[in-house]
Amino acid sequence: MSELRRSEFAVTDATTIRELLDSVRFGSLAYLRVDRTPGVSVLNFVRVEDLIYFHGSPHGERAASLRVNPAVAFLAADPLALIPSHFLHPELACPATQFFRSVVIRGEVRIVRDRAEKAIALAAFMQKLQPEGGYAPVRDDDLYRKSLEATEVFALPVGAATAKFKLGQNLPAHKRREVADRIAERGSSVDLATVNAMRELGLLGD
Amino acid sequence: MSELRRSEFAVTDATTIRELLDSVRFGSLAYLRVDRTPGVSVLNFVRVEDLIYFHGSPHGERAASLRVNPAVAFLAADPLALIPSHFLHPELACPATQFFRSVVIRGEVRIVRDRAEKAIALAAFMQKLQPEGGYAPVRDDDLYRKSLEATEVFALPVGAATAKFKLGQNLPAHKRREVADRIAERGSSVDLATVNAMRELGLLGD
Repeated sequence: MSELRRSEFAVTDATTIRELLDSVRFGSLAYLRVDRTPGVSVLNFVRVEDLIYFHGSPHGERAASLRVNPAVAFLAADPLALIPSHFLHPELACPATQFFRSVVIRGEVRIVRDRAEKAIALAAFMQKLQPEGGYAPVRDDDLYRKSLEATEVFALPVGAATAKFKLGQNLPAHKRREVADRIAERGSSVDLATVNAMRELGLLGD
Repeated sequence: MSELRRSEFAVTDATTIRELLDSVRFGSLAYLRVDRTPGVSVLNFVRVEDLIYFHGSPHGERAASLRVNPAVAFLAADPLALIPSHFLHPELACPATQFFRSVVIRGEVRIVRDRAEKAIALAAFMQKLQPEGGYAPVRDDDLYRKSLEATEVFALPVGAATAKFKLGQNLPAHKRREVADRIAERGSSVDLATVNAMRELGLLGD
């Protein structure tokens, strides 16, 4: 993408970035394997203040890689509506596109060794993914001590997050409103979320 | 993950892997930036025979990185139902988990320079993402020549794909059926897709 397009789709507002991180359940972690080729895995994550946490088994390839090479790139994406070419052109296929919102956090992961911090991270996980409760609160206590010790938790600073929202910013305002109307007409839950996301970003001029 | 858990969740059937690749719309591409730190981006993709294709602008950081370092890891994930801890234990939070299906393809991308192959890839994209048509077929002709030239297309061999399906394989059969019943009872479209995925993998013994 050229510098021009880059700036068109870039989102830098910290609150908007945090809101996206809080609304997306899982992300993709790109890391360097021990042989320095790329590795990737999907995982749930949670933001707590200026950190995101994710967790997994201390065994296996990803954990071993992160211990050697803590540099990662973490992607949280919210894929939105597919825009068919005919919303924008009667004949050409080229305008077909996927609207989405995404955040990429680059940085170095820290392995969390402190049981109390692990408990905070895992309690936040449960709060995000099972808000209805139905479990004993996660604390550094007798009930959870062994599980906390057996779980590897990683922290990554949100600080270096960059966001890209592709929501028709490159279209003239009247075309963008027309596309939003066509999406809303189609009316699926993803379509309605897309129009909301366009509105929240101030792209519909209302 | 230990070798034991690895084998439990690993899926090696080529047809199952292809079906997942064909049903998932977008993936995460992990690559090496020019400075050899990890990069990641979300993108649509399509499988054509033994290759997956993705495309983008020839400008910008990702394209520049792939020209220097063609080694990538590509993830296509289908996140399924969240399993609350209380489906499995009355008190402990630990059993809470996310069911999912995922494929990772590691290998080297090839930059597609041949306009005819680009046209095949982009025609397949349109077929996957806009099956209702409504555009002139993508061919290496006067209508599309300039667009084909301006688009960077990458090919990655599916050959080295590995898949991980997390669908309760680690549970005893009766527990797994109980969890499937609870998921089905909850009844969202993701829940029903999850029970189907469990059944397709032969995990429900019917």
